[in-house]
Amino acid sequence: MKKIILLGATGSIGVQTADIIREHPEQFSLIGFSAGKNMEITRKFILEFLPEIVCVQSAQDAEQLQKEFPKTQFAHGHQGLIDAATYDADVLVNAVIGSVGLEPTLEAIKLGRTIAIANKETLVTAGHLVMQSAKKYGADILPVDSEHSALFQALNGEKLEQASRLILTASGGSFRDKTRAELKNVTVEDALNHPNWSMGSKITIDSATMLNKGLEVIEAHVLFDFAYEDIDVLLHRESIIHSMVEFQDTSVMAQLGTPDMRVPIQYALSYPDRLPRADAKRLDLAEIAQLNFREMDYDRFHALKLAFDAGREGGTMTTVLNAANEQAVAMFLNRQIGFLQIEDFIERAMEAHSSIAAPDLGTILAVDSQTRKTVENMLK
Amino acid sequence: MKKIILLGATGSIGVQTADIIREHPEQFSLIGFSAGKNMEITRKFILEFLPEIVCVQSAQDAEQLQKEFPKTQFAHGHQGLIDAATYDADVLVNAVIGSVGLEPTLEAIKLGRTIAIANKETLVTAGHLVMQSAKKYGADILPVDSEHSALFQALNGEKLEQASRLILTASGGSFRDKTRAELKNVTVEDALNHPNWSMGSKITIDSATMLNKGLEVIEAHVLFDFAYEDIDVLLHRESIIHSMVEFQDTSVMAQLGTPDMRVPIQYALSYPDRLPRADAKRLDLAEIAQLNFREMDYDRFHALKLAFDAGREGGTMTTVLNAANEQAVAMFLNRQIGFLQIEDFIERAMEAHSSIAAPDLGTILAVDSQTRKTVENMLK
Repeated sequence: MKKIILLGATGSIGVQTADIIREHPEQFSLIGFSAGKNMEITRKFILEFLPEIVCVQSAQDAEQLQKEFPKTQFAHGHQGLIDAATYDADVLVNAVIGSVGLEPTLEAIKLGRTIAIANKETLVTAGHLVMQSAKKYGADILPVDSEHSALFQALNGEKLEQASRLILTASGGSFRDKTRAELKNVTVEDALNHPNWSMGSKITIDSATMLNKGLEVIEAHVLFDFAYEDIDVLLHRESIIHSMVEFQDTSVMAQLGTPDMRVPIQYALSYPDRLPRADAKRLDLAEIAQLNFREMDYDRFHALKLAFDAGREGGTMTTVLNAANEQAVAMFLNRQIGFLQIEDFIERAMEAHSSIAAPDLGTILAVDSQTRKTVENMLK
Repeated sequence: MKKIILLGATGSIGVQTADIIREHPEQFSLIGFSAGKNMEITRKFILEFLPEIVCVQSAQDAEQLQKEFPKTQFAHGHQGLIDAATYDADVLVNAVIGSVGLEPTLEAIKLGRTIAIANKETLVTAGHLVMQSAKKYGADILPVDSEHSALFQALNGEKLEQASRLILTASGGSFRDKTRAELKNVTVEDALNHPNWSMGSKITIDSATMLNKGLEVIEAHVLFDFAYEDIDVLLHRESIIHSMVEFQDTSVMAQLGTPDMRVPIQYALSYPDRLPRADAKRLDLAEIAQLNFREMDYDRFHALKLAFDAGREGGTMTTVLNAANEQAVAMFLNRQIGFLQIEDFIERAMEAHSSIAAPDLGTILAVDSQTRKTVENMLK
């Protein structure tokens, strides 16, 4: 029985992680989770999973829940998130959105916990701290993202130094067939309509700008220690091949499946084993009939180019990329800016920043918060 | 440095195995090989690789070569093949064509040798003997066929009992777009014109009848201990995905590459490592643009159905399938029978045979030779 702590339980990945835990009561036990402000799912999960610790955003919610559920320990806010992350368990699933997941993850790593990481911002902004610390404290970092899980699976049983290239596939998002000119006036509703994956709204926008793939490229660089020139992105509209690894003998190993986030989530929880997924749709390639591939167009998907640039620059530049994107996407979702302004604001934030090499946590958080302000002020 | 013995050096797989050994003089040394009657390649390989033992078909050739190359040990015929197979080495590559490779392989297994097996007839006719013996003597059996190598690579680092399905891909061979009616009058030349792979003539005909895929299904059953109902064949005309394994979590792991037999040959020699392939074409999926898949049609490809039938029946029935096919293909290549008569003769041979369960080597060889006569007599 693996004891699981789930940060970000009420988000898209969080809810699907709960599905997997529910499907395998013999293997997994949800002993703690964090939620934001969604008290409906929070109460439902407390009743269903009977966790030992729960963290919510506000002190008032924590107080109220403590009265309702006296047997559970409640925490709140930033310190509460750290308390939940470091609570005794086997696997910490970090499924929060944004850089708020960084510090709790670093604290759990210090305890040698296995980290199933769905919070890409943690790796993008502080990958060097996470991986160094994981090495030092012997903590396993397991990817949850479908692409990185595919890479991780393709590398299973192989020697990393005999792999020559990582090939991340990209569906192209909701606007893959639009020209740049056509992107100018797209709406929030258009952008949220992703063709293959059912995800949260922030990540669906990131998928439409292709900044999502850019964050994944940086994440792959961090997780697998590959140089940026050895990481390719390939347009693959069907999202059936979730990513591939090319080895030095020219063999390419790929992981395929129907687009269902619960498969990589489960793999991160069950690793190194694979558990059955009773109700899941099996891949039927004869039914799909055709898989298409197209070279990435870095002019069309300018945000992806920005991500490669930030990654190559390194230091705090990836923090700027991520923070500027989070701020700009929030502004787009609030209908304050147009779709193409997202990448424009990111580019301007990057241009305004001089990267600081090998930053510590304080520097990262300072750059993060300053970048958000910089981007906010671009509207003025 | 791995010492390699290569049975069947002058055939298509043999020559490509020599290419790999030539490419990696630091890793591999060809210390012995067997050849049939092709004295040109035999002399060339002796001069190039300076082997310690060479087996040829006839006593006269052996005698003549002994005079020319006094430092090399020469052997001939069936016993010579066993002498070569059991000569001190690290890996025995069995790349002979037909069931002649069976006994030498079994003898090498008794010495605990690693066997790289390209001779599918050995596994098809005597799979139970080979695998039992390999287990008993601790010999590794490594597949060379691109499909089985792909399955083997997809299973790397995984637990076999967590794999649920083997999916062999089939290009469809040279006649994949023809109807059964159109197959009636195809010529030997038509059949030898394979669209993707450069192979020997016997295997190219087997690919056109799809009996080749049938032998591969039986081979996969033997190598990976999968029930026939858990082995699927999928039409995939581009031969880029070389085969796949589905796991119980619905993940599918696949091995991809440009069609080049030297990749799986090298993998069998270098396993568990992967060596560079300097001159090889890397896979470029954007250039290929599209991969197509179609459900297998067992009426159209009747020989494949016969292979599944023979496999499910088991015992000596797979020996009958293989021997009848070898005889019928020889008759087709000799222009004695038409293309569709190949499967007709196989089916008649199977109908005429009552399978003997768990046959020993003597029984297998007797059934093999009797089947060939039965098929030969079908012309009278």
